[in-house]
Parts: sequence; C-alpha cells; structure tokens
Amino acid sequence: MAMKAGVVGAAGFAGMELMRLLSAHPDFQLVAITSSELAGQRAADAYPAFEGVCDLRFLSHDDAALDACDVVFLAVPHTAALAAAPGFLERGISVVDLSADFRLKDPAVYEQWYKVPHTQKDLLARAAFGLPELSGDELARVATAHAAGEAVLVACAGCYPTATSLAAAPAVRAGLVREGAPVVVDAVSGVTGAGKKATQRTHFCFADANLEAYGVGTHRHTPEIEQILGMPGRVVFTPHLAPLGRGLLSTVTLPLSDDAPRDIEHYRALYRRAYEGSPFVAVLGDGAMPRTASVAGTNRAHIGLALSEPAHALVAVCAIDNLGKGAAGQAVQCANIVFGLPQDAGLSGVSLSV
Amino acid sequence: MAMKAGVVGAAGFAGMELMRLLSAHPDFQLVAITSSELAGQRAADAYPAFEGVCDLRFLSHDDAALDACDVVFLAVPHTAALAAAPGFLERGISVVDLSADFRLKDPAVYEQWYKVPHTQKDLLARAAFGLPELSGDELARVATAHAAGEAVLVACAGCYPTATSLAAAPAVRAGLVREGAPVVVDAVSGVTGAGKKATQRTHFCFADANLEAYGVGTHRHTPEIEQILGMPGRVVFTPHLAPLGRGLLSTVTLPLSDDAPRDIEHYRALYRRAYEGSPFVAVLGDGAMPRTASVAGTNRAHIGLALSEPAHALVAVCAIDNLGKGAAGQAVQCANIVFGLPQDAGLSGVSLSV
Amino acid sequence: MAMKAGVVGAAGFAGMELMRLLSAHPDFQLVAITSSELAGQRAADAYPAFEGVCDLRFLSHDDAALDACDVVFLAVPHTAALAAAPGFLERGISVVDLSADFRLKDPAVYEQWYKVPHTQKDLLARAAFGLPELSGDELARVATAHAAGEAVLVACAGCYPTATSLAAAPAVRAGLVREGAPVVVDAVSGVTGAGKKATQRTHFCFADANLEAYGVGTHRHTPEIEQILGMPGRVVFTPHLAPLGRGLLSTVTLPLSDDAPRDIEHYRALYRRAYEGSPFVAVLGDGAMPRTASVAGTNRAHIGLALSEPAHALVAVCAIDNLGKGAAGQAVQCANIVFGLPQDAGLSGVSLSV
Amino acid sequence: MAMKAGVVGAAGFAGMELMRLLSAHPDFQLVAITSSELAGQRAADAYPAFEGVCDLRFLSHDDAALDACDVVFLAVPHTAALAAAPGFLERGISVVDLSADFRLKDPAVYEQWYKVPHTQKDLLARAAFGLPELSGDELARVATAHAAGEAVLVACAGCYPTATSLAAAPAVRAGLVREGAPVVVDAVSGVTGAGKKATQRTHFCFADANLEAYGVGTHRHTPEIEQILGMPGRVVFTPHLAPLGRGLLSTVTLPLSDDAPRDIEHYRALYRRAYEGSPFVAVLGDGAMPRTASVAGTNRAHIGLALSEPAHALVAVCAIDNLGKGAAGQAVQCANIVFGLPQDAGLSGVSLSV
Repeated sequence: MAMKAGVVGAAGFAGMELMRLLSAHPDFQLVAITSSELAGQRAADAYPAFEGVCDLRFLSHDDAALDACDVVFLAVPHTAALAAAPGFLERGISVVDLSADFRLKDPAVYEQWYKVPHTQKDLLARAAFGLPELSGDELARVATAHAAGEAVLVACAGCYPTATSLAAAPAVRAGLVREGAPVVVDAVSGVTGAGKKATQRTHFCFADANLEAYGVGTHRHTPEIEQILGMPGRVVFTPHLAPLGRGLLSTVTLPLSDDAPRDIEHYRALYRRAYEGSPFVAVLGDGAMPRTASVAGTNRAHIGLALSEPAHALVAVCAIDNLGKGAAGQAVQCANIVFGLPQDAGLSGVSLSV
Repeated sequence: MAMKAGVVGAAGFAGMELMRLLSAHPDFQLVAITSSELAGQRAADAYPAFEGVCDLRFLSHDDAALDACDVVFLAVPHTAALAAAPGFLERGISVVDLSADFRLKDPAVYEQWYKVPHTQKDLLARAAFGLPELSGDELARVATAHAAGEAVLVACAGCYPTATSLAAAPAVRAGLVREGAPVVVDAVSGVTGAGKKATQRTHFCFADANLEAYGVGTHRHTPEIEQILGMPGRVVFTPHLAPLGRGLLSTVTLPLSDDAPRDIEHYRALYRRAYEGSPFVAVLGDGAMPRTASVAGTNRAHIGLALSEPAHALVAVCAIDNLGKGAAGQAVQCANIVFGLPQDAGLSGVSLSV
Repeated sequence: MAMKAGVVGAAGFAGMELMRLLSAHPDFQLVAITSSELAGQRAADAYPAFEGVCDLRFLSHDDAALDACDVVFLAVPHTAALAAAPGFLERGISVVDLSADFRLKDPAVYEQWYKVPHTQKDLLARAAFGLPELSGDELARVATAHAAGEAVLVACAGCYPTATSLAAAPAVRAGLVREGAPVVVDAVSGVTGAGKKATQRTHFCFADANLEAYGVGTHRHTPEIEQILGMPGRVVFTPHLAPLGRGLLSTVTLPLSDDAPRDIEHYRALYRRAYEGSPFVAVLGDGAMPRTASVAGTNRAHIGLALSEPAHALVAVCAIDNLGKGAAGQAVQCANIVFGLPQDAGLSGVSLSV
Repeated sequence: MAMKAGVVGAAGFAGMELMRLLSAHPDFQLVAITSSELAGQRAADAYPAFEGVCDLRFLSHDDAALDACDVVFLAVPHTAALAAAPGFLERGISVVDLSADFRLKDPAVYEQWYKVPHTQKDLLARAAFGLPELSGDELARVATAHAAGEAVLVACAGCYPTATSLAAAPAVRAGLVREGAPVVVDAVSGVTGAGKKATQRTHFCFADANLEAYGVGTHRHTPEIEQILGMPGRVVFTPHLAPLGRGLLSTVTLPLSDDAPRDIEHYRALYRRAYEGSPFVAVLGDGAMPRTASVAGTNRAHIGLALSEPAHALVAVCAIDNLGKGAAGQAVQCANIVFGLPQDAGLSGVSLSV
C-alpha cells in the first residue's frame, strides 16, 4: 500500500519537481501540497503541466491535511525547516528536508555561514545526511530506525555539494590529493538554481546570453563540500550562472600528491569501483566529458575524468540536474532507501535530450 | 507478455524519442534499433542519456533482428517508408510509420507536393491515419484487423497537422467557419523539428536569438491539414522556427460565419465536448493560452481559444511537443490503440517545466 | 553644435537603448537621464555596459536638468506621456514620445482600448506620427515647424505596428487586398518586449524554451495597425512571446482580390519601389525570408514575400529589433528627420549576428 | 586617407566580425574579403546583416585584389597563416594574424601542442604579440618599424589567453602568487567559439540547455597562457561550452603566498593601476562580478575580484566577447596601435545588453 506523502513549499522549483516525481511514484501517494503564496489555488490552474496529472490544491503550511502523511518533504528556505521539522517528527511523521538546516554536523559552522542561530541542535545527531552514494550508513541507520517504527529525519545534500563531492570523493578518499593544497571547485548552474522568485537576476533578458560568477568566496555550500570531503578550509568554491533552466556542472581540480599515478585509467577504475553499486552514477569512458543535457530531468550523475600534466592535477567533472540529483530526485532516492524501497523506485526517467 | 518492438531510423530525433518512450513502456520491449549512420555503435556510447537505460547497439536497416519484432516504428524520411513498409507487412510485422508516405489518401496529392511517384498505392487504403482524437474509427478498424491476426499499417499525422487540426477541427466540423474564407495557420516549431542533421540553419549561432519563417506557401504539411479539415485549397500555412529545442505552437485564425456565436464560452464548451474522452487534450479555461513548455516531453496538447471582434474570427491556439504528440508520443499512442492497450500506456510523463 | 537630449524613463529597455544610441550619436549630446526607481544611481554602476561610455546619474523625472534639453525622449508607460509632454512643449522643448499616448488620431479609440480618458486632445493634431517610411509628410510638417522655432511633438509608432505595417502597407495601398476580408497578423516578439519588470512571465525559467500567445483579440496595438493601414475592424492580431531577448517578426497574411497578380515578382517590385528611398528597409530576393537576428541591434527592417496559392493570399513577413526600429532606433530616426539631420545619423550599426 | 584593409577567411565568425568592425571604422576601408567556401557570392546575399552595409563579394584567398591592401587580417585556421603571411609581408602588406601560428615564441612549444612543424621560425622574432594591455612594447616596436615603412606582423592573442591573462597578470606580476602552486583556470565560452562549421556539437539541439567541459588537459591555449604569465607547466586549464552565442568568462584561482595581503581592496587598487591607461578594461568595484552580456559586441573586458579565505586564494574573473576582445576587436585595436591611430578608433560600441 502506498505511503502518504506531503510536500511543504510545493510551489518552488524543487517543490514542483517533487510533485512531478511523487505523482508518478509507484509507492508514494501525494496527498498534500502547501504553498504560502498560492494556498487555495488548484495546482493545475496555476501550472498547467499538472493538468490531468495532479488534482490537488495548494494548502497553507499548517494545514491539518499534512497530519495524514507518513512523510513530508520540506522544500523550504533555511530556518523554515528548523521551525517545521520538530512538529512533524513529534507527530510521528518522517521528514525529508531539502533545506540546509540539518546538513552541517557542527552547529557552529551553520551559524557562522548562515548568520542565524541553530535552534534544533538536538536533532542534528538524529538527522541522516542524504547523499546516498557517499553517506550510505547514515541512511541505513535511519532506515533501521524507521523499520522499528520511528519517525526519521533526512537532510538531503545541496546541489553543488552533490555534484562536487561525487566528482572529488573517490580521489580524496583514496588519499591521492596533495596534502594541504587547495581544491578548486568552479561550478555552473542553470537558472532554476536561483529560485522561482522573479528578480533582475532571473529576468530572461538579464540571464539569457550571459555568464557570470556569484557568491565568490562566500557561498554557503562551501562548508558542506568541505564536510563531505573532510577538508575544512581547503576548498575554493566559485559558483556561476549560465543561460539554461536545469543543469549543474561542477569542475573540480584536485592537485595530486607526487606519488599519485599519472595514468588516467587508474582513476577511472578507482571511480568505477567507488560507484559500482549505484544505479545513478556513470563514469564515462575514453576521456568523454559529461553533458548536463544528458542528465536533465533525471536523478543521474555523469562523471568525466582527465589529468592535467605537468601540473599533475586530476580534473573531475560531474553533471547533474540541480532539481533532480541536486534536489528532488535525491530526496526521493533518500526516501526510497529509508522506507525500504528499491532506491530507484519512481526515478527511472530518461533525459529528454540525449 | 510484452510485444517486441523495433525502431527503424532510431538515431534521428523522433527515433531517439521512440527509444526513450519504448524503453519505459510496460507493454513493449524494445529489441532492435537501426541507423545507417551509427550502425555498430552502442546507443549509450553515442548518446550517454541512454547509459543505464538501453544497452542495444544500432543495427543496419536490413538487420535480421527486426524479423523478431511484432511491430516496427519507421522514423525515416519520406520515400524510405514506401520502400520499407511492404516487406515488414509481408513478414507479418505491423508498421507504425512516422513519415509522410501513407498520410495523404490521394496519391496524386502526394506526388504533387512531394515530387516523387507514390509506389505503394495499394497500401493507402489499408493504412489507418494516426491522429487518434480526430481519426478514431480508422484506428479502430485496424485494431480489429490486428486482433484478427493481421499485420497492420498506421500512418501517423505530422507535427504541424496534429497541432493545427486539434485547434481547428471542432469549429470546422461544427460548421461555424465562414464558407470559402481562407483559414490562416501560423505555426512555430522548435529546432528539433528541423532534424538532427548539422546545417547552418540548425547551428546554434544561427538558430539562437532568431525568429524566421520558412517554406512559406510551399510546406508539405499544407495538404495534410486540408485533408484532415476537409478544406482543399483553403489553408494558408506559414511555419516558423524559434530558438527552443522541443515545442510547437499553432495559431489558427478561423473566420466565422455571420451567424456563429460571439460568446467564447460557446466555443470552449464545444471544444471540451469534442475532446471529452481524450486523456491528452486539455482545453484551457478563462482565456488562458497554452505554453509549449508545459507540454514539452509529453504526449499532451493544450488548447486556448479567443474571439477577435469585430473581425469575427476564432483564434485557436494549440501547443504540443513536436517530438511527443507531434511524432513519437503519437506513434506510441496509436500503437497502444491498435494493439488493444490503454491509449496512455507508457505516456503518463509530466513536463519538466510547469 | 550638438543638440542637448534627455531621456525620461531611461532605465527601461527602450530607455537604455536610447542611452546607447544617443551616447554614440554625432549630433546629439545626452545630458540628462531619469528613472523614478534608480534616481541618484550612476548608470554605469547599475548597468556596467555603460562603464566608460556614459558617466551620468539617473535623475528624478522632474529634475531641472531636463530644462537644458533641446529634446526629450519619453520612454514611459502610457498616461505618463500625457502628463509630461505638455510641460516640455510649453518650455520650448521638443518631445519624441515612445508611448502610445499620441499615436491614435481619434481620442475615442484611445479611450476605448486604453480604458483611460485622453487628457490632451488638443495636442493630437499637433503630434506627428513617427513611422518615417509610411508617414513621411507628417514628419516633414513638424520639421518645418521646428525649423521655424517651434517645439514639436512626435508620437513614434509601436513595435508590432511598425513591423506589421511595413509588411502590409504597399500591398494594401496598391489596392490589391480583397475588399472586406480580414487581415491576419501573427507576430512574435522577444522578451524585451515584455518590459524590464521582473514577473513570472519574464522569469528565465518560464520564458526560456517556451512559446505562447498572449493578449489574443485584445492587444492595444490592433487599432494602431488598423489606423496606419486604413482598415478599421479588419485586423485579427495575435502577438506571441518566444525565447529570445530582442527581435520581432510579424507575419501578415493578406487575402488578395481576384484580379491581383499571381506572380511574386510583381509584389517584390512593388515593395522595392515603395521603400526605394529608405536606408533601413530591405526587401529580400528569391523567396528569402527575414531573420530577426540579422537586424537585432539595428534600426533595419527586412521584408520577405511569398504567395500562397490556390488560396490566393500574399504572406508578407517583416523582421525588426523591437527595441531598435520598434522603439529607440525609430525614435532617433524621427528626431533626425525633425531636426534636419540625415535620417541615419547615429544609426549605422550592423547586427552582431549575420 | 583611409588605409585599405582586407580580410582573409572573412566568412568565419571572426572574419565576419572583422567585416562588421572595419565597415564602420573611420580610418580603414574594407576593400577585399575572401572565403574559400563562398568565393563569388555577395556577402549581403549570404549574410543579410550586411545588406546596405557592405557591397563586396567574397573572393578566393589568392585573389589579386588583396595586393591593393595596406593591411590584411588573417582569420584562418592555424598553419594557413604560416602559409599566407610571408607572401603578404614580401609584397609590403602588413599582416594582423588572428591564428595561433605566430603567438608562441618558442617554435618547439608550438610543434609540441599543434603537432605540425613550424615552417616560419624566422618570422617569430619579427612578430609582435597582440594583447595591448599586457604586451605594450612589442606593439610599440612594430609601430615604429611600420612608421619607418616596413610591413609588420602582429600575432593577436587567443580568446581564452586574453581573458585569463587580463584576470591573472597583475597579481602574478606583483609576485603575490604562491611559488610553484598550480594556477587553475576554468573558463566558459559561447558557441561562436566552436566555429561556424555545422557539427553535432554546434547543433542547436545539442548545444542549447547544455553545459560541458572539453579539451581538458589538452587545450592549445594552455601554453599561450603560461607564456604570457611566465609560468611554464603551472596552469591547469579547463575550457567549457555554454548555451550562448558570444561571450567568454574566465575564472582564475590564484593561490596566494603566505605574506600576500588578505584585504581585497589591495588587489582592486593594484588591478586599477595596472589598467589605468586602458580604455577597454574596467575593474569592477564592491565585489561586483562581471557579466559577459555587458561586454558582448564590444572590445571591452570587465574584471571582478574576490578573496577566498582561509584557503588564501585570489579569484579573478574576466568577461569578454570572444569575437570582440577575444578576436576581431583585439585585432583592430592592435592595428590601430601599429598604424598610429587612437587605439579605440572604430571600437566605441556599447553592448546591446546592459
């Protein structure tokens, strides 16, 4: 019997992607969607893509209909998840959180980067970090708890950290990266990453035909990347915006230690072993480099690897859909794992591009 | 048990969309794909979106593997279907043809517009025209034949004729259009409609940030539209190209007869009745106008209606995905009908945009 | 000696295009720019493209610096020009108005379509309609008045009316269009046409990869087109939005009278004679169709012609830049004419695309 | 009196941008354009943007009309300039070369990266490297030679090296970069950078809505960047392709030496001093980051600076138009300098975006 699912913050881009995925999921039944802005409107009236697919109306965030859920997905800004999660957990409803509120293990780091107090420190230990390919036992732990009847909390990884860590982790964890050297992450996101709010930055006539960097030296995904890779203070992260809707490409330059191999096949084999069990990660062959278009609309990640010599660095590039593996897809994948389903249930879509 | 399906011409845009749809279809099993250009290559090597989805290699068009199919989809240029269809039918393999070769009932009209002889006139009567919402009993006829063990032939409607006829037919068939007046069709297609061949026209730097008309007064979809609407010589059809990949919008201006109603609700009710049984066609309310993005990647068609007074014309606008309802989606819908499946089997996807 | 020019409403798209053109104009000196929103800010700080080009700060709309101008360009919404124009004229400052306030000769038509009272009916007779290729003696009249020391008022044509009328006028004026038949205008604009205000419609993620019609049957440019062509109640005008920044393509279907020629060369010759003296209008040859990209960033208009038989209609297609010939370029062209300069002064740029 | 100029390879993107710039240049007269592919065609027939602007026909590369030139611009692939330059110089015609053939001072480096013999080693010493803001005395040297009546050779810098070096050079030359540490360059180009040849990579439907890296570890601009910065073997350069036509953004991460300042204002002041005399380079203030759209269609470069702490790296980002400051604009700027004109003659255009 399908589990009942709700989406809080369903009218944002990640929320609507959750609606799209959950509407077609064999094991979840989408029963409640909320939006402070659109409460009362039928989703298909506001967004005609849902015509014939989803007949729900947006509710307010505190609507009692959420109480019927087995799980809620929080697609809300940071601090809003701090406020909402405890109540759901107390009522026995599991929470899959797409915000940043429970990602950083150390609340001091959260407070330093987000400039707000962390009001739910007790929940941090309970939360499982949701990047299944790299945080596997955390999810197994909460899956066991859930199987024992507990409401659980998953803090899904952010979009840039997901692509960046998938690209970097196997080399970092194998000890091949030069001690102390900075790791340079230049990543490019499509405009859905800037959110649904209409601003000058997201205006077609400013975003189209344009490339720009933003948040240089200050982006809040920096400490999350450093946490996953175990490299505090080592990451130089520069995000960029490019004129496409969905898609995120992270190019990670890893300076190698002197004795690290100079043969790209060594690295390709290492990465393929690392992602052997994952249905969503493909390590491309023959020096091929990933295209974001080939993974758009899916939960897949494609990784390409190359060496830069004589500088002796590994350049690892990962392409994902920022709303898919970078947000809603990953959240569903985490939910699948936690609730004992095949991890790819409802996530078998193929990109519209090739 | 799943029916075995093949795609001939699988490396074009419509062919790859068929691969995408058939790979995920519950009742078809994709067993053979052909491409003259890429024969021998693994599809997922050529197009990484198929990594983890489809492990087939492209075969040559005459590969014996096609003999194992229950049905082949022909995604080939016109004349190539004339050459290929008879052989499949003779071997008892049903054919769903996406080319123009069997669409026009009168071979003389075909020969006039396509400037080649029609070499399979005998098959024309046997072919069912595939635009399910408007040609229903033809498909029912061949469904019956197929149930009786016969290999059947479906000639799927073209992209512009599909969107245009869905927009125009209910008003035309209700006799509301002014006798003898020209019907003006201005339609805009995304660049996938221009095919996968790399040319100056399809070069990003010529297609992007550009609008243009093409084939004015000469486009071969004109007689197909006129055939569906029963209006020989009445349609002025101007296709345009715009900078998007998938999507087709047809704006049809129908001059109304003097006694036709001047109340838009009359037309909306008429259209809703006409498409009552169709899971794929939505007639939008309240003067809303369709967005191609909301149907991209799906088999859906959205229709918006407005009156222009005092000129007394109905403006009917239809949005489809030219590769979905305009090609591969429609072909799968036709196949579903012919083979006795629910017509939306394997076609439940939601657009990536909203 | 250069004439002093001001731009009121300089921070909108048309206003910034005026800044761009006037900064490089040999005979105008841009001395004042206003913006209610950005008053006080240096233009180059708000919009870095002006770095090294224009060192002005945005002023408020009533700043006394405007009094030093010989001419002001009004790039403001309708009704704002009604409010502002009289004061400038009284102070002896000529006004080139890009809004709709003085375009329609009959104030009752204005009031019907714009739903507001026309508060400056006396100025309507004084205003010259600014579409130089089609309204020549009006501009000559005010040029004479200006030469005699009078402050003058020009009401520049709108973007859709400009492209549409350039495409339609020669055939209409030659009496070739079928009496009483509706003229169908389907036009497509880039997103700059929707204005600089950040809305869901102009959000990159809604505008990109999308086609849609809007304002069907109700767009306010309809009566302006009918006025220029002398065809009240005859035009069915459907504007569309496509995913590009600059560019407007108008496709006009003109049903021809029975005795109108069936040879396209007749029409091409007619159009070339009509635009013989114009440096900005090119009638393309050999059935070529115009590309908006080829005129983007310029004051040029490209026209393509084709016949649709047997329906016997002329399809005339015109491409312009909606901010160029459709707004700021045309305003500068009008100013050039009125002030006795070569009409292409400061307007010789070539499109960035080819 | 205007100098007579020719463009060899005029039908490529850089060649057509040269045509655009030279057609409007006050001191050059464009007298000959060549194209092997389009020889015989009128430029305005092939590319309607030139209608009313340039009435020339494309000639073959060896047409005698080139002999009338004072200067030829070579917009040809590498090795073609090796073949063509000596003949022009012998006939007393100066050469401004946009290819890579004379950029690398050490022919062994050229041969290693381009895998062909360098057949004109004698000309290498004679050639001036054309990146005026960073190679000033070389251009002054050949300007003197030209003033003395000599035909001269300029090897214009490539697109990626221009943006990258403008971003990196002031910090590198001030000795602030950590000794021996790799300098990471991640740069993104629009599709014009991939050339006018129609290929799958440049097809709209593959390039649009997509991000990808290419040439990782192997791109031939690597040694050119290292030569300008004086850092052999230190640069890790990863170029990317994004869905826009014109525009190039280079993000350079410079690890700083321990005693380099930790105050961004220090770096901003340093960069502003370095580019004080340059009309084309602007160092943005207040942590602003450059937008490629704001420099598209111009010869400008915008630079933004930020520090990443605690990793202690300077992130310097430079935006140019790859066809402007990255190719044709820079070539005209070099020609201006060499021929004693103001360096911004004919280069005063403002971007169409803001």
